[in-house]
Amino acid sequence: MYKARVFVTLRESILDPAGTAVKGSLNRLGFGEVADVRIGKYVELRLDGAENPGERVKAMCEKLLANTVMEDFRFEIEEEAP
Amino acid sequence: MYKARVFVTLRESILDPAGTAVKGSLNRLGFGEVADVRIGKYVELRLDGAENPGERVKAMCEKLLANTVMEDFRFEIEEEAP
Repeated sequence: MYKARVFVTLRESILDPAGTAVKGSLNRLGFGEVADVRIGKYVELRLDGAENPGERVKAMCEKLLANTVMEDFRFEIEEEAP
Repeated sequence: MYKARVFVTLRESILDPAGTAVKGSLNRLGFGEVADVRIGKYVELRLDGAENPGERVKAMCEKLLANTVMEDFRFEIEEEAP
């Protein structure tokens, strides 16, 4: 049993209007120190009996979880007690 | 200058229909080992000249970034060269 944590973020060159909106809201709420906000996705996967979990999760990101034209992804995998 | 990474996830007791849909899609795409998927948010913040960044980010999560009725959050902070 493995647990994978996948982080999908917009590429640096892509505008992030949702992040800009959240930055404005935080600034107005009194958090003036917030200089930049980028919003991404976080996906937790539980894998049952996978071989090569790293390769499998990379393939999942490329095929479904991330849009690699606009997004980057990275992931962490840890083994879990069954 | 600090960089904060915030992870917001639905509480375990809350249904995650988007995660269930992604699990089904991954299974149909040939990733039969995927037993569970939970989808959350990932927010990267850049803080300029903050004192107590840990307390400040916790307050941002409680006030805006997470809905603490339904969601849990955790975060990491690292110092960056200016």
